[in-house]
Amino acid sequence: MAGNTFGRILKVSTFGESHGVALGGVLDGVPAGIELDFKAINIDLQRRKPGQSKITTQRKEDDEVEFLSGIFEGKTTGTSIGFIIKNQNQRSGDYGDIAKAYRPSHADYTYDQKYGFRDYRGGGRSSARETSIRVVAGAIAKQIIPKMSINAYVSRVGDISLNVPHNEIDLGEIEKNIVRCPDADTAKRMEDLITDVRMQGDTIGGVVACMIDGVPAGLGEPVFDRLQAELAKAMFSINAVKGFEYGSGFEGSKMRGSQHNDLFNLDGSTKTNRSGGIQGGISNGEEIYFNVAFKPVATLLMPQMTIDQNYKEVELNPKGRHDPCVVPRAVPIVEAMAALVLADYYLINKTRRV
Amino acid sequence: MAGNTFGRILKVSTFGESHGVALGGVLDGVPAGIELDFKAINIDLQRRKPGQSKITTQRKEDDEVEFLSGIFEGKTTGTSIGFIIKNQNQRSGDYGDIAKAYRPSHADYTYDQKYGFRDYRGGGRSSARETSIRVVAGAIAKQIIPKMSINAYVSRVGDISLNVPHNEIDLGEIEKNIVRCPDADTAKRMEDLITDVRMQGDTIGGVVACMIDGVPAGLGEPVFDRLQAELAKAMFSINAVKGFEYGSGFEGSKMRGSQHNDLFNLDGSTKTNRSGGIQGGISNGEEIYFNVAFKPVATLLMPQMTIDQNYKEVELNPKGRHDPCVVPRAVPIVEAMAALVLADYYLINKTRRV
Amino acid sequence: MAGNTFGRILKVSTFGESHGVALGGVLDGVPAGIELDFKAINIDLQRRKPGQSKITTQRKEDDEVEFLSGIFEGKTTGTSIGFIIKNQNQRSGDYGDIAKAYRPSHADYTYDQKYGFRDYRGGGRSSARETSIRVVAGAIAKQIIPKMSINAYVSRVGDISLNVPHNEIDLGEIEKNIVRCPDADTAKRMEDLITDVRMQGDTIGGVVACMIDGVPAGLGEPVFDRLQAELAKAMFSINAVKGFEYGSGFEGSKMRGSQHNDLFNLDGSTKTNRSGGIQGGISNGEEIYFNVAFKPVATLLMPQMTIDQNYKEVELNPKGRHDPCVVPRAVPIVEAMAALVLADYYLINKTRRV
Amino acid sequence: MAGNTFGRILKVSTFGESHGVALGGVLDGVPAGIELDFKAINIDLQRRKPGQSKITTQRKEDDEVEFLSGIFEGKTTGTSIGFIIKNQNQRSGDYGDIAKAYRPSHADYTYDQKYGFRDYRGGGRSSARETSIRVVAGAIAKQIIPKMSINAYVSRVGDISLNVPHNEIDLGEIEKNIVRCPDADTAKRMEDLITDVRMQGDTIGGVVACMIDGVPAGLGEPVFDRLQAELAKAMFSINAVKGFEYGSGFEGSKMRGSQHNDLFNLDGSTKTNRSGGIQGGISNGEEIYFNVAFKPVATLLMPQMTIDQNYKEVELNPKGRHDPCVVPRAVPIVEAMAALVLADYYLINKTRRV
Repeated sequence: MAGNTFGRILKVSTFGESHGVALGGVLDGVPAGIELDFKAINIDLQRRKPGQSKITTQRKEDDEVEFLSGIFEGKTTGTSIGFIIKNQNQRSGDYGDIAKAYRPSHADYTYDQKYGFRDYRGGGRSSARETSIRVVAGAIAKQIIPKMSINAYVSRVGDISLNVPHNEIDLGEIEKNIVRCPDADTAKRMEDLITDVRMQGDTIGGVVACMIDGVPAGLGEPVFDRLQAELAKAMFSINAVKGFEYGSGFEGSKMRGSQHNDLFNLDGSTKTNRSGGIQGGISNGEEIYFNVAFKPVATLLMPQMTIDQNYKEVELNPKGRHDPCVVPRAVPIVEAMAALVLADYYLINKTRRV
Repeated sequence: MAGNTFGRILKVSTFGESHGVALGGVLDGVPAGIELDFKAINIDLQRRKPGQSKITTQRKEDDEVEFLSGIFEGKTTGTSIGFIIKNQNQRSGDYGDIAKAYRPSHADYTYDQKYGFRDYRGGGRSSARETSIRVVAGAIAKQIIPKMSINAYVSRVGDISLNVPHNEIDLGEIEKNIVRCPDADTAKRMEDLITDVRMQGDTIGGVVACMIDGVPAGLGEPVFDRLQAELAKAMFSINAVKGFEYGSGFEGSKMRGSQHNDLFNLDGSTKTNRSGGIQGGISNGEEIYFNVAFKPVATLLMPQMTIDQNYKEVELNPKGRHDPCVVPRAVPIVEAMAALVLADYYLINKTRRV
Repeated sequence: MAGNTFGRILKVSTFGESHGVALGGVLDGVPAGIELDFKAINIDLQRRKPGQSKITTQRKEDDEVEFLSGIFEGKTTGTSIGFIIKNQNQRSGDYGDIAKAYRPSHADYTYDQKYGFRDYRGGGRSSARETSIRVVAGAIAKQIIPKMSINAYVSRVGDISLNVPHNEIDLGEIEKNIVRCPDADTAKRMEDLITDVRMQGDTIGGVVACMIDGVPAGLGEPVFDRLQAELAKAMFSINAVKGFEYGSGFEGSKMRGSQHNDLFNLDGSTKTNRSGGIQGGISNGEEIYFNVAFKPVATLLMPQMTIDQNYKEVELNPKGRHDPCVVPRAVPIVEAMAALVLADYYLINKTRRV
Repeated sequence: MAGNTFGRILKVSTFGESHGVALGGVLDGVPAGIELDFKAINIDLQRRKPGQSKITTQRKEDDEVEFLSGIFEGKTTGTSIGFIIKNQNQRSGDYGDIAKAYRPSHADYTYDQKYGFRDYRGGGRSSARETSIRVVAGAIAKQIIPKMSINAYVSRVGDISLNVPHNEIDLGEIEKNIVRCPDADTAKRMEDLITDVRMQGDTIGGVVACMIDGVPAGLGEPVFDRLQAELAKAMFSINAVKGFEYGSGFEGSKMRGSQHNDLFNLDGSTKTNRSGGIQGGISNGEEIYFNVAFKPVATLLMPQMTIDQNYKEVELNPKGRHDPCVVPRAVPIVEAMAALVLADYYLINKTRRV
């Protein structure tokens, strides 16, 4: 209810501020008997962490997860998995004016409106640092459905788009460059754009695409809990997301039914996949794919006029480091949230027939 | 868990198939003491019902809601509100081959995969007829937050777009034409397109835009239950929705932070509203606005090849009536789901400070 | 949240006041493919209904349930099952002073305190008439776990106790008398007591015992959702319940561990069953048994002094019919609530191993 | 769903095994702006911890809680409060045969049945060590409702009962002796009994009584979420609880309505309080009181025959320390769970009127 829990059967509850002692979570509902691949969890954490390349923030965080429960001799026991990631760098420093100023398009103003005051250190709970916990939970969730694979990548930065359709992507290319765009040339152009934006102290938005294969047919619940509805909620729970579309998406709404319908092959698969692997809210066994649009990060390395909590005009003159473009680091976060949804629905579906 | 309940404090649970005895719902959590405007409820039902104009399906349904509980002398009592809408036309008729065939891009195949069999009469639970119940619940939800107003309209049909920005719309124009597009000329062109598509037995998609004013600052919960996340889930729970964006949306992801940030006025309002009324997952008091993309309806009045439950090829030769474009009728559904989300979050927010 | 929903995977949401148009419910999460035994549902309804014998209220209600959805050709489809029971006798009559008076030990005062006003017709939502809906839902829940049987009976009325231990009960005797006590002599004495109390316009409490056999080992979740915790909640959600104990219960708390422990047989069953079929919150395959204490009904057929909503003293002079002892009619309600809990936990348990 | 979360608006999720690295929890939904009394939290933890007196287990645990988030400058921020308690003594030691044996009346057998295997170190998740986390969460919950006070005490050990009615208790006496029975003489006799039982390597059960004052009228939801239903669930979620009764309880079920009804005073208070402060599931402003029965602890310091996971007979010959009677240490746990329920319902009730 207060927003720090996600999922029904597979349920993660999280806590932690960007500059507090630690962040952490409780992942409940993981079935017993799964032999966890801890290396895979760590790889996802490294893909999300800041300072991993020259185009992300140079802020240094060693995201090391400590598991505190729910695992015995390498296997999940069926009880809740508690884990924390300590903050290395929690000196409060002198926040001075920033403590009182409302940064434009941040959560500062709305947190104050909601709670009456706020933990102003580095964004407190609204900081994207919180997503490290999701990545851990998601990396476990990825290990629940046999044969499922989730692959996200950057398909657009600013107005530079990858012009390869999702079903022609070479998955092996994604992690070969720091932008996580599976086409070397496009990736290079994106990288140049981000570098340019960064040197200006500015930021830029983009799009992350995601493909999910190996999803059994039958996942998703009718009416309110359609599979796409929960996927959409999951994606919009990520900082900076402004848009989500699956299958044919916004383009599909321009089409006629006679063009858009996916005709069947004789084995129940479909000749086309404009449905995006979901029909009537339920997976049909085809690939699930979707796009997630991220706005440019609101924190700039340039002066901005704003107001403070006394409604007086002040100038922000930020120093230090910033993240010019979040989409490369958002890739594992999108995957993690997708994994949490799919694994949850996979477990729910075990209860739908006698 | 099985998908027929939406909301937390304000919670609606629904039931009913398109060709069963009745549809209905239980709306729980409505605060006590609200003097209900039943006329407003009825108007929304009329806006959704089939057969209301020449560009919607000519199927005739008199959607009349009967309230069975939770209201005493015209006021909500705080207990659950039960209500039903009877189906006038539930003859099962002879479904013949349709009973066994999987209509392309429908829920027929996935329901069979999930449940092992299905109620094939008119789509059963996957039919959009189910949304009539949401409209009733939403029409009550609209009456919970004082001063809030929700206005949706059609902003695109196929590739005919309304070229008026959302904040320059004349709300009084929306209901003046059967397309529900608040510009007479554009509406006429859309109507012509729909008529054309209809005569070909085809269907066409489109976009519904929605504006919500009078939302107090502070609604929305951090992390997983951001206001936009629940709005997205609500919209993707509607049949045929393929995309959702709020505020600057997909276009915003092309911008730079220095262009995108909403600077403050001295009273805490913002000079621009690319944030779409939500920052950090919490309403800031500005207008909330978003777009919802609908694919073309999958039911066509033309022959299509498909397979049946024995994986044999069959030809569908549908007769009778169909809905060439759902977006005009989707307008009150979008409003209803938005109202359910906003009212729920409004109630939740009453618990967030001592 | 507002209290009209019970369960997680198997979830029932109910509505309806004692003197409104109808009561009803939505039962969601029933697995697909169950061939429902409608006769069994009806028998449970008849066991609960008023006017069934000379020791219950003589108020006449024909509780006939109408199923509106979720069932196709006699089988559950996996979608939500909506159903209603119409009130035959909903004339508001002249409630006069009763409308304003607070009946002692009723919900009148607390509803007014909570909601600011109330539907005073026959108790509104606080009336036990609401439990008819639970009986329908519970009768369906009974059909979900294969081989499980639930048998409740009256083990005490006032201070007349049945002196047969639960595991020596002849189940065939329960329904042979109108008290539902499985011993003819004790039943006769109970019946006489109830008749005596009734003629004085008074009421009397009692205890319902319940036995559940055929529960597979493994149901129940650790920590907060122990099986006994949900059973307790279920029982205390029934009107007039003041106490619940399972297994050795209150008597067990007088014992020493060396007396109380249940030693194992070589097949994993236990030599004694003081645990009541549940250990560590999880069923162990032995019989689950518990007792539920009901206070005497608060509605008397004798004058009582009380106050009204203006805090003025008034005399209540009730006329007509009353229920001298609810425990015989509570038997199917206890069973229904137990069935809802067990079936829910049975479904949840399907998700706890890979 | 998997049982490690309690509450709706005020929601605690917990993790941790008795011999793992740490236990912890996430408390979500605490309203913003509460200045926490950390000393009070610590006092409750000390009241629960083992080794606090000669009649509890001599196992030494320094339960020190570390708060990791959700608090800023001593005040709650409205975001989730994460906290952990490290285990000092997590050497696995040599569990040898115990690892394979099923201790009678423990959770060993049922965990194996449910999950297929278990973490056998010290009981794993089924250990009462887990309740330390509840005590922390409950101690925060106690600080949410202004003016509410919760006082539990030991009213029976074995068959030695305190013969002072709950409303004549001198609260100041409770913590004056190690049994936590508010009558020096009775406490002495209880202490002697526990010492005697302890020297025999045996254990003994008992009853904890609890009184809650200062609860505003109006808390509790009709039908399924009656206040007593959630209190019952909360109490039965505590290890070793076998019975719960509130107000007149089991004794009340022997009475007649004319004796049992609570008549009103002219100010709306009642002359008697057999209702236990709750009518129709909703608090009426009178004192809420209830009893909780605990079975004797199953771990004995004497030999017992049992079986192992291969269904072979083995003899348990436990050494070391044990807890002869849990009820003195259960007192703060009962208070904590009561506080979590009351605070949750207090917050929910803020949403029930416009």
